[in-house]
Amino acid sequence: MKEKSNAYKAVHDISRNSTLLEGISHHLGWDQETYMPPGHASIRAEQLKLLAGLVHKEKTSKTFETALNKLINVKTGKILTKTLTPEQARSAELWRRDFINEKALPNRFVEDFAKLKSQALEAWRHARQENAFSHFAPFLDKIVGMNRRMADYFGYKTTAYDALMDHYEPDLTTKVVDKVFCELRGATVDLLKKIQSKKQVNDQFLHGDFPEEKQMIFVKKMLSDVGYHPDTGRLDISTHPFSHSTHPTDVRITTRVNPKYAMANIFGALHEVGHGMYELGLPVEHYGSPLAQPNSLGIHESQSRWWETRIGHCKAYWEHYLPLLKKQFPDVLKKNQLDAFYKAINKVQPTFIRVEADEVTYNMHVILRYEIEKGLIDGSLKVRDVPEAWNAKMVELLGIKPKTNTLGCLQDVHWSMGAMGYFPTYTLGTMFASHLFQGFEKKHPDWEKRVAKGELLFIREWLQQNIHCHGRRYSSLELLKKATGKEFSAKAFINYLNNKYSDIYGI
Amino acid sequence: MKEKSNAYKAVHDISRNSTLLEGISHHLGWDQETYMPPGHASIRAEQLKLLAGLVHKEKTSKTFETALNKLINVKTGKILTKTLTPEQARSAELWRRDFINEKALPNRFVEDFAKLKSQALEAWRHARQENAFSHFAPFLDKIVGMNRRMADYFGYKTTAYDALMDHYEPDLTTKVVDKVFCELRGATVDLLKKIQSKKQVNDQFLHGDFPEEKQMIFVKKMLSDVGYHPDTGRLDISTHPFSHSTHPTDVRITTRVNPKYAMANIFGALHEVGHGMYELGLPVEHYGSPLAQPNSLGIHESQSRWWETRIGHCKAYWEHYLPLLKKQFPDVLKKNQLDAFYKAINKVQPTFIRVEADEVTYNMHVILRYEIEKGLIDGSLKVRDVPEAWNAKMVELLGIKPKTNTLGCLQDVHWSMGAMGYFPTYTLGTMFASHLFQGFEKKHPDWEKRVAKGELLFIREWLQQNIHCHGRRYSSLELLKKATGKEFSAKAFINYLNNKYSDIYGI
Repeated sequence: MKEKSNAYKAVHDISRNSTLLEGISHHLGWDQETYMPPGHASIRAEQLKLLAGLVHKEKTSKTFETALNKLINVKTGKILTKTLTPEQARSAELWRRDFINEKALPNRFVEDFAKLKSQALEAWRHARQENAFSHFAPFLDKIVGMNRRMADYFGYKTTAYDALMDHYEPDLTTKVVDKVFCELRGATVDLLKKIQSKKQVNDQFLHGDFPEEKQMIFVKKMLSDVGYHPDTGRLDISTHPFSHSTHPTDVRITTRVNPKYAMANIFGALHEVGHGMYELGLPVEHYGSPLAQPNSLGIHESQSRWWETRIGHCKAYWEHYLPLLKKQFPDVLKKNQLDAFYKAINKVQPTFIRVEADEVTYNMHVILRYEIEKGLIDGSLKVRDVPEAWNAKMVELLGIKPKTNTLGCLQDVHWSMGAMGYFPTYTLGTMFASHLFQGFEKKHPDWEKRVAKGELLFIREWLQQNIHCHGRRYSSLELLKKATGKEFSAKAFINYLNNKYSDIYGI
Repeated sequence: MKEKSNAYKAVHDISRNSTLLEGISHHLGWDQETYMPPGHASIRAEQLKLLAGLVHKEKTSKTFETALNKLINVKTGKILTKTLTPEQARSAELWRRDFINEKALPNRFVEDFAKLKSQALEAWRHARQENAFSHFAPFLDKIVGMNRRMADYFGYKTTAYDALMDHYEPDLTTKVVDKVFCELRGATVDLLKKIQSKKQVNDQFLHGDFPEEKQMIFVKKMLSDVGYHPDTGRLDISTHPFSHSTHPTDVRITTRVNPKYAMANIFGALHEVGHGMYELGLPVEHYGSPLAQPNSLGIHESQSRWWETRIGHCKAYWEHYLPLLKKQFPDVLKKNQLDAFYKAINKVQPTFIRVEADEVTYNMHVILRYEIEKGLIDGSLKVRDVPEAWNAKMVELLGIKPKTNTLGCLQDVHWSMGAMGYFPTYTLGTMFASHLFQGFEKKHPDWEKRVAKGELLFIREWLQQNIHCHGRRYSSLELLKKATGKEFSAKAFINYLNNKYSDIYGI
């Protein structure tokens, strides 16, 4: 017995070291976006490259492989140490999977890809600024090619895109995603038509003077109420909001402040704290093993969307917080009643930019990118035709056509960073949140009453017990079922949208 | 030729990687004292330990040794690559020296010492709080023993203390330090007697209301005027002021704010920016080699004391800055004239705490520790007799006797951190600054006129050209001679003290 548990510990110890190094990288990433003197940028890039190299070396080392091969046959996947607990066996399987993925890409490929990405990022920035897709197109073309090669290295059963998506959302295939996206697409187009036939809600009063200092007082109170604590986290300001975890004892988030519009800060911070609470809730006793890692990007996004949309955009939440918000900004908001405020923050209107979109139209932006990416990867869409395809899909899905590529296919950074298969996790996460909410509502049918009184910690506890504590113990689909008793489908989210917006728009 | 320069590059590349990792460690140290959530402390300690291990591994690796052995025979010190420039040859010698030192301590010893230090730190904190030397004594005893063993591992010609001091101040021996400290000790005791026979200066007006925000405006202006720029540095607030360099493009300093006494912040920041400007001025083109490392702790301290005392405490500096300071604090300072202000900031008075001491008495605190440390290492002083020896020396050197050990031998953290041979560098640095000042005055005889007009960048330029750019190219004694044309002695500093304080106290 002692010998067997030593075999697990041997793998865990090596893995713990690379996890510590990854944590340091995340911290350096945080610093880069917050306090780093700008003149240090190129050396910071070198530091990150060096750490990435060390982590890769450690994760693919002969020492690690030898240790792992005592737990599990790396070639066949057969568990070799009989005394492993089911949790440890799962951990061994994930270590093997990660090891194979880590080894799959030749060093030369990784280096070439890294170089291409940094060139593509520059080209994209320039192209976006100049509204000149042709500057970015040759790089996008190479990125598509590299992604195809990457899919080949990883291997796949049905489509190359599956292999790419698997990187971010393990075990989920285009077959499943196509199905739920197709349902969601249809339902959203219908709902949007109905909404657009009704009178638009007024949200003018959300724009006005919201001094930074007062915004921050309100936001800090909100974060503290969900259980985000300065002992293990902190809030700073950056150009783009983000959440960075070094370890479950150091998870920092950032937000941005527009002194003319407080809601961007408020919902941005709620979104990021959702990501943050997930990282803080991972089982620290397993730190260094896959059991203490977040499940997938989709599940991660479900946690941020949970707090941002399901809680932060519900009426009960503002029953408690609107009086507090008015206290900070009495001049701007004193006349507004809860009902009007609730409608204003949920205003639906097709717009060009994904990150500014409302809850209904948001997913159309994501589905558009998903369809374009699949076309690029399977060769049915050529890079040069992307702008046209983009604009046509915008008309089809949202009824509007961007006047420039900067407002269209050049708006997002992801492709220039080499990422394909990433976008769907945004909408998957949003749908996961609503699917999970069913389990939560069943356990806490009175949740709205409690939220209206400012109680929030019971929500965090439910998420902690049903999502966070499991890390990568289950696949995302298993986790969704375990937490709700139901197979994942688009239904919960579509019902939620229909009910909520029928009420708001009087459909 | 190509082959030869490749040999140098091979060593440099490996060394550059460990330097990058050390820079990351320094950054993590900065974060720990500024923005890190406190709950992360134990994991941060693990991260730092892991990085230290990686650096040690890299610096003592067979790969590094093999590469180094192509430049220089590691056993004999004979340069093997004939085409090296003199600079590169010096670099090879220093790499060899560092390699031998790095290999000198057995892993087991390093681990035991690290463990002892963390226990000793706890014991010291407790002992200091409780004024109970007996709690700390057993740990100090072990630390003395470990330091003796360390000296044996490093090796030495005359005394074990030389080997310890060599760690912080390479090539300087107790023989040299004894001589200059003896002269300084005699001169200071004489000067102090004369000062104490005169009327004390009034510094009451330096205590009052100095709001943090206004202090920071003034301090930032001061730092900006010496050439410290936000593109490669930043100023934050921490419990104890410090300077941390990640790379010559990222050198951050901190200060502390007492809202009742602005001078601690002002002189603390000037001290730290002196350290910072040194790191910023190191020759970045040699980054990763010893040529881009600071010369020694003494030379480092000479740069901080230069800005803090030689510039920051001179009359010309305040001719320019006093009006600016009055502008921030008109209520407190409006009545004060330059002459009174200059005398106040230079008030001499024996006190118990080293870090609060004035320019004259400061060195007596250091000499006291130096003498005690030497006694402990050569066995002539027992740990149990330290409090008595301390108090007797305080009376002898400064004429005052601390009522408690907390105000006496328990005040400093250094011994609990295992450091012996470190203290002398504080006074050596102070003396180096005055020795160097001779070279500067010769080149810029009109420096006071220019400083009085607020010109400071020419000073930085002189330091850059005569100290910073040389890194470890020369030993500290060589550097002192090169910059001034004179062998280092206590004379410059003693003359400076006598002239300055005779004037202030009308001796």
